[in-house]
Amino acid sequence: MAPLSPRVVVKVDLKKKPWQQDQPLHNRWHPEIPPVAEVKAGEFFRVEMIDAMGGVIKDNDSASDIKNLVLTTTHHLSGPIRVVDEEGVAAKAGDLLAVEICNLGPLPGDEWGFTGSFDRENGGGFLTDHFPCATKAIWYFEGIYAYSPQIPGVRFPGLTHPGVIGTAPSNELLRIWNDRERQLEESGVESLTLCEVVHQRPLACLPTTKGCLLGNIEEGTPEWERIANEAARTIPGRENGGNCDIKNLSRGSKIYLPVFVEGANLSTGDMHFSQGDGEISFCGAIEMSGFLELKCEIIRNGMQEYLTPMGPTPLHVNPIFEIGPVEPRFSEWLVFEGISVDESGKQHYLDATVAYKRAVLNAIDYLFKFGYSKEQVYLLLSCCPCEGRLSGIVDSPSAVATLAIPTAIFDQDIRPKNRKVPVGPRVVRKPDVLKSTYDGKLPITKNPSSSS
Amino acid sequence: MAPLSPRVVVKVDLKKKPWQQDQPLHNRWHPEIPPVAEVKAGEFFRVEMIDAMGGVIKDNDSASDIKNLVLTTTHHLSGPIRVVDEEGVAAKAGDLLAVEICNLGPLPGDEWGFTGSFDRENGGGFLTDHFPCATKAIWYFEGIYAYSPQIPGVRFPGLTHPGVIGTAPSNELLRIWNDRERQLEESGVESLTLCEVVHQRPLACLPTTKGCLLGNIEEGTPEWERIANEAARTIPGRENGGNCDIKNLSRGSKIYLPVFVEGANLSTGDMHFSQGDGEISFCGAIEMSGFLELKCEIIRNGMQEYLTPMGPTPLHVNPIFEIGPVEPRFSEWLVFEGISVDESGKQHYLDATVAYKRAVLNAIDYLFKFGYSKEQVYLLLSCCPCEGRLSGIVDSPSAVATLAIPTAIFDQDIRPKNRKVPVGPRVVRKPDVLKSTYDGKLPITKNPSSSS
Amino acid sequence: MAPLSPRVVVKVDLKKKPWQQDQPLHNRWHPEIPPVAEVKAGEFFRVEMIDAMGGVIKDNDSASDIKNLVLTTTHHLSGPIRVVDEEGVAAKAGDLLAVEICNLGPLPGDEWGFTGSFDRENGGGFLTDHFPCATKAIWYFEGIYAYSPQIPGVRFPGLTHPGVIGTAPSNELLRIWNDRERQLEESGVESLTLCEVVHQRPLACLPTTKGCLLGNIEEGTPEWERIANEAARTIPGRENGGNCDIKNLSRGSKIYLPVFVEGANLSTGDMHFSQGDGEISFCGAIEMSGFLELKCEIIRNGMQEYLTPMGPTPLHVNPIFEIGPVEPRFSEWLVFEGISVDESGKQHYLDATVAYKRAVLNAIDYLFKFGYSKEQVYLLLSCCPCEGRLSGIVDSPSAVATLAIPTAIFDQDIRPKNRKVPVGPRVVRKPDVLKSTYDGKLPITKNPSSSS
Amino acid sequence: MAPLSPRVVVKVDLKKKPWQQDQPLHNRWHPEIPPVAEVKAGEFFRVEMIDAMGGVIKDNDSASDIKNLVLTTTHHLSGPIRVVDEEGVAAKAGDLLAVEICNLGPLPGDEWGFTGSFDRENGGGFLTDHFPCATKAIWYFEGIYAYSPQIPGVRFPGLTHPGVIGTAPSNELLRIWNDRERQLEESGVESLTLCEVVHQRPLACLPTTKGCLLGNIEEGTPEWERIANEAARTIPGRENGGNCDIKNLSRGSKIYLPVFVEGANLSTGDMHFSQGDGEISFCGAIEMSGFLELKCEIIRNGMQEYLTPMGPTPLHVNPIFEIGPVEPRFSEWLVFEGISVDESGKQHYLDATVAYKRAVLNAIDYLFKFGYSKEQVYLLLSCCPCEGRLSGIVDSPSAVATLAIPTAIFDQDIRPKNRKVPVGPRVVRKPDVLKSTYDGKLPITKNPSSSS
Repeated sequence: MAPLSPRVVVKVDLKKKPWQQDQPLHNRWHPEIPPVAEVKAGEFFRVEMIDAMGGVIKDNDSASDIKNLVLTTTHHLSGPIRVVDEEGVAAKAGDLLAVEICNLGPLPGDEWGFTGSFDRENGGGFLTDHFPCATKAIWYFEGIYAYSPQIPGVRFPGLTHPGVIGTAPSNELLRIWNDRERQLEESGVESLTLCEVVHQRPLACLPTTKGCLLGNIEEGTPEWERIANEAARTIPGRENGGNCDIKNLSRGSKIYLPVFVEGANLSTGDMHFSQGDGEISFCGAIEMSGFLELKCEIIRNGMQEYLTPMGPTPLHVNPIFEIGPVEPRFSEWLVFEGISVDESGKQHYLDATVAYKRAVLNAIDYLFKFGYSKEQVYLLLSCCPCEGRLSGIVDSPSAVATLAIPTAIFDQDIRPKNRKVPVGPRVVRKPDVLKSTYDGKLPITKNPSSSS
Repeated sequence: MAPLSPRVVVKVDLKKKPWQQDQPLHNRWHPEIPPVAEVKAGEFFRVEMIDAMGGVIKDNDSASDIKNLVLTTTHHLSGPIRVVDEEGVAAKAGDLLAVEICNLGPLPGDEWGFTGSFDRENGGGFLTDHFPCATKAIWYFEGIYAYSPQIPGVRFPGLTHPGVIGTAPSNELLRIWNDRERQLEESGVESLTLCEVVHQRPLACLPTTKGCLLGNIEEGTPEWERIANEAARTIPGRENGGNCDIKNLSRGSKIYLPVFVEGANLSTGDMHFSQGDGEISFCGAIEMSGFLELKCEIIRNGMQEYLTPMGPTPLHVNPIFEIGPVEPRFSEWLVFEGISVDESGKQHYLDATVAYKRAVLNAIDYLFKFGYSKEQVYLLLSCCPCEGRLSGIVDSPSAVATLAIPTAIFDQDIRPKNRKVPVGPRVVRKPDVLKSTYDGKLPITKNPSSSS
Repeated sequence: MAPLSPRVVVKVDLKKKPWQQDQPLHNRWHPEIPPVAEVKAGEFFRVEMIDAMGGVIKDNDSASDIKNLVLTTTHHLSGPIRVVDEEGVAAKAGDLLAVEICNLGPLPGDEWGFTGSFDRENGGGFLTDHFPCATKAIWYFEGIYAYSPQIPGVRFPGLTHPGVIGTAPSNELLRIWNDRERQLEESGVESLTLCEVVHQRPLACLPTTKGCLLGNIEEGTPEWERIANEAARTIPGRENGGNCDIKNLSRGSKIYLPVFVEGANLSTGDMHFSQGDGEISFCGAIEMSGFLELKCEIIRNGMQEYLTPMGPTPLHVNPIFEIGPVEPRFSEWLVFEGISVDESGKQHYLDATVAYKRAVLNAIDYLFKFGYSKEQVYLLLSCCPCEGRLSGIVDSPSAVATLAIPTAIFDQDIRPKNRKVPVGPRVVRKPDVLKSTYDGKLPITKNPSSSS
Repeated sequence: MAPLSPRVVVKVDLKKKPWQQDQPLHNRWHPEIPPVAEVKAGEFFRVEMIDAMGGVIKDNDSASDIKNLVLTTTHHLSGPIRVVDEEGVAAKAGDLLAVEICNLGPLPGDEWGFTGSFDRENGGGFLTDHFPCATKAIWYFEGIYAYSPQIPGVRFPGLTHPGVIGTAPSNELLRIWNDRERQLEESGVESLTLCEVVHQRPLACLPTTKGCLLGNIEEGTPEWERIANEAARTIPGRENGGNCDIKNLSRGSKIYLPVFVEGANLSTGDMHFSQGDGEISFCGAIEMSGFLELKCEIIRNGMQEYLTPMGPTPLHVNPIFEIGPVEPRFSEWLVFEGISVDESGKQHYLDATVAYKRAVLNAIDYLFKFGYSKEQVYLLLSCCPCEGRLSGIVDSPSAVATLAIPTAIFDQDIRPKNRKVPVGPRVVRKPDVLKSTYDGKLPITKNPSSSS
């Protein structure tokens, strides 16, 4: 007789603050954050997590919590978890850690989530130049489905996944991260014209002691100070996986993570009930607390065997993964094209980011005509199971990106029709998303041709 | 009793040169290229086309035809086709033209195609800095399947689609195109740091009389000279659709194209038996001659009703489309991540193009370990039904892109395994793709960590 | 350079009668019908076929051709095709013949088909006790789609397949067939209470010289007389495959057929543009002429290696097959349950046939409320891509069968709704199917509770 | 702020016996079993259930518990649940009750299940004449996946569903059931030749006080005696839904149940982690305890509006349902055909039950060659997500049924191959299922040609 249930290796208490959890959380990547648990290869175990923002966003009628969020505390991660093989020998640098996501979901009793867009002065988002205000929508779950009082008329099954899953970096890898991101922060605005188009600031999120949580390392000690000043922020995806925000890392998928430190030191968090490709509004998935049920396998020397570094060191690798068998299935999609010409009419050279921005803007304005506010669509496309594709990347000078939206998530038929009178859709969707004022002074991108 | 078969409105003769066809072809966009056929809304009709390169690439043992291709003749389009409604009134500017792709395929007797990568001095491709040589692989079709003598061990069903489908631009739209692309060509290298990473030249393909075909407009006349100097090249996708290279525009899909001139003047060409997202090697789909069976519908004033301009004029729109019901179905995918850090280790700001380049490079080096040459994988990922996704576009400073490859197209299991001895796959795939020398002087990107 | 196109090994001329074809057709199974063509293992070849009924059903406004059809001439098969291996050695009894269906479709210029139900005195159908009249609907094809003037408001992509594909029986197998079917014909009505429920007659279709076509064997000769009196009719599916009417034998599928005679002697015919599980109205698929593009492989001794006989001799086997990758994809299905209680209220013991009959009757009456005539639905469910499932087969005494209908084929939403006024759907679909009178004397099953 | 979690309306305690539960269970259908809970239309609620057999089958090393099971206690149902509308008015006879299955799964801490086949003297199963012994396999769950120590080499995602979901019958409907099933039991063996082929006994499961549980009705009272003698057993699916064992009633599906009594009195139970079409071994799904999260809607007069009776009274209806969006997705299937010729070689007339039996037998013998015991395959095909199709039901005299098995559930490639030496697969799978002796005297069906 086998053990029936997964062993809970990390437990959270939603009534406690992040820094009060029995197994302390962390919100930075660093090789010296000590493991809070150990698992054996082949063992079936469970990890619980609070939401990425640490519980400060509430199910209430205001977006001010989003507006005032302290981003330096994001993401609250569970772990690190040390992984050993059947004989008790730890994973070692150069191995691959295969992590199978056997199941996941919201924590019982906490079946809700939120989607928001940050204020432009405080994190922004993919379209922050168009939508500088903080906004928020609450989602309630009915089993596999989510619906929002602030975005009426849509309901969809979630493609639930952890936004963050990764192994601890080695000191060398950490140095590489900090160097390249500091370089970007320091010289980026001058050297990267992309910044004209995607107006998010800061360019990089560099290490800071502010809001830093380092698990079992006691705050205020010299060790804590040193590590907090070195430890990488968790916002970007990197060589260790991390915040890759890949919606398809869902039930039944299997991710192969490179191992950089002894024990692998797996951490995870930022559970998303659902997310669209790109997670465009930044706080864009349906963010929630949750649990993962996992199984690990160690592929000895797997990094060398399977991954090829792409860069100056053997550490410049990326994870690979297999998709699981129970993703929501949609057969009908309405697809929006975008090319790498920006809102001012300027042509960009094979720039997929600009092309995708345009595809998203096209979709927002299209759905606006069906009665949704643009902010409703912005949040909806951040969190519903829509697909962003790099369709053409060689036809100089235009990159072509597409955004495919499953039509079945709407309670109306959103396809173009050829009917005489009345032409077009005229339903108005009320209420709207929760919205804060934007008090900053950055210019707002105005599409001179926009319908509102 | 209804008419049983589609009416053939454009017929091609593969034994004739492009400029000898009875219904003359064109390879430029211009409002004054006269229609070669007319169809009624609701009519079921057939359009034949030669391959994009006009028949100069041969089923032989050399890549020199690819190396020496004259790109100014690409793409050879069938049309324009004037569309009128049931009462005979032509589509007019401001309408939407809904084009349903009821069927498509290779031309009987010509069931083969080719995939190539251009020489870096002559068009290049997404990875031309890594693979500067011209290469070529021939594909034979067995019904829905394609296989290549040059890429043994793979076989897959095609997601056949026209690379180019679009309406004629108005004079105003044409001016917009030429202006913005000229501006890019003139100032791009300085202003766009992306050029360091995606080394394709020229930046834009501006109008030229060289290789120009203008359908029924007689070559050498003053009219021809004027139009040839104004007419837009067909390489990039634009507001009129055009060379969007979207693999999902396949059987059963329906594209909604904006109408800019009276009659819509629909043109199409560049048939692809199959293509992966991005068409990365540029000549990257399985290029072939072919046919389309189409049905058009005119949605009067549909541009205003359904599309919102995104830019300085009402013409800054993009097509939308619905996906058809018979795409090849795969349930198992191996997925490669890429982040916006380039091969030198430099961090780029939310740059999806760089992230996708890295995902593709990762996939190539991975599959190389399974016995394929890197050039084989480069061409394979250009043309097999793989999916390129914009997974994360907000997690500053890293964009995350993913490349998903269906495992069923291989005759071996390409997933990582945890077996003891021998570790890893050691099959060598012979023969290789056809290859030319690269005689240029541009530097080749060398990944210092690469396995070969 | 490989041969580009499939070699046409059987060609038909639709302007000629079945018995006038250059490669004579056959409509019986017999080991002595000589091959009309030979193919090599691995060769890619093409087989053309006329429709199952031999061209007598016309695209006109009357069902009288269906009513008066001479069933003894069905099905007109192309072949037999002798299969040899790469060395020229013929397939032999005991081998498995793997036949890959690389492509198939209607013959160019003949893109239409028909669905009918036979008169109760002349073949009947699954619900002939409810619908004793001959009926007919014509379908036109627009590429992958079919629509019918007689069944307005539906359009669907075809899951095209050959109704008949099989190898020639040996003399021994033929004897087994004739013996067991004669026994059924002679004693069936008394011994099988199922006959009360499924009122089709005759019980079996025994050999007859009437309407018999034997390919190259000259009619009227003593040899012809002998063979015609022995040769099995083609109506039922049997050990050799034959008329199995499996809709999933479509593009890309691969069927493994047992070989009973030297050369395998593969025959095929009865092309269906589309069919629902069960092909309930008997002439129930969208019947058409067509072509197959095939590839054969010989698995030596494969019968013994892979198939286990289930019955008194080693010949009591059945084919197996793999499903292809491009079936139409539907994500939303409305499903009707049926249990093994017949229309009189009588309970049958685990009888899946009765359960499926009831599921189909339930579906017909349901869709009738949406404005279709019952005959329209009867034909529609015969030919659209609906799925019939054996859901429960052990819960004594009720078998449970289900019929799943893809909702996307309708131009209205056919799901139950909870709206106040008006309750329910009230669209009337005109025109109706073509219908003949029923002049027979058999009783019609009347559902006392039926809505019409 | 909405209520976050589903309200638990029926709770079970797995440490207690079925008759000790706080909300008493029932294992019969009767209008007078009083509701144990009430829910409002639109409310999101949770129902827990013990396993169908009431906890007597254990996770141990013996099949004797299966052999000695007292079938009269099956199935232990949770409910009845009374349903009222938003205004508190109960559902009434003639309404439709739409029940959406928002989520379901095993009970936390009890993540295991069992599959068995009953002894031929005690319930039997679809192939009990071939496999008369009681057998058992235990399954452990790892999130969405199940694996069994007794059936090594397979692992699959569950298509979890309640085997039983239904409304209470009215007195009139109950009488109809009892009458028709008694009639079958009394005259069945003589009148139904199917009994020769499907040797299960008894033919019907008639009311009995033995093992009867009637919820809140106190055992031993006269009322209890009366009701116990009238109440229908739960084995067969019927007009009220009940034990329909439809595997697709999974996450996200929506079933429309007819309402026969005031309040609808919804009951459910018999949770299956996974089941194949047909649930062939009878105790054939992966049986477990579990929970359902449901939402109900009342469609007033929906029976009349949407369902058409098929039989002598307005009560002769069947439920309909919509399939949910997250079923496991498989793209490759190996399919076995069966025709209505039984193991003795006898031809049956359009008998889908016989055809399916043969398809299943073919599949068992095929997989036996890949190293599994026949009992392993028998249980596997009972519980894995395989599909049973009614492919042809009109081609007299043969019905054609197919059984499609997803190849991805095996750790070996089970497709036929054309390799020279060694031909065929030779892996032996150990250990085997748990097995009891068969001590009865009924004859065993022997396939004279079988491979073992």
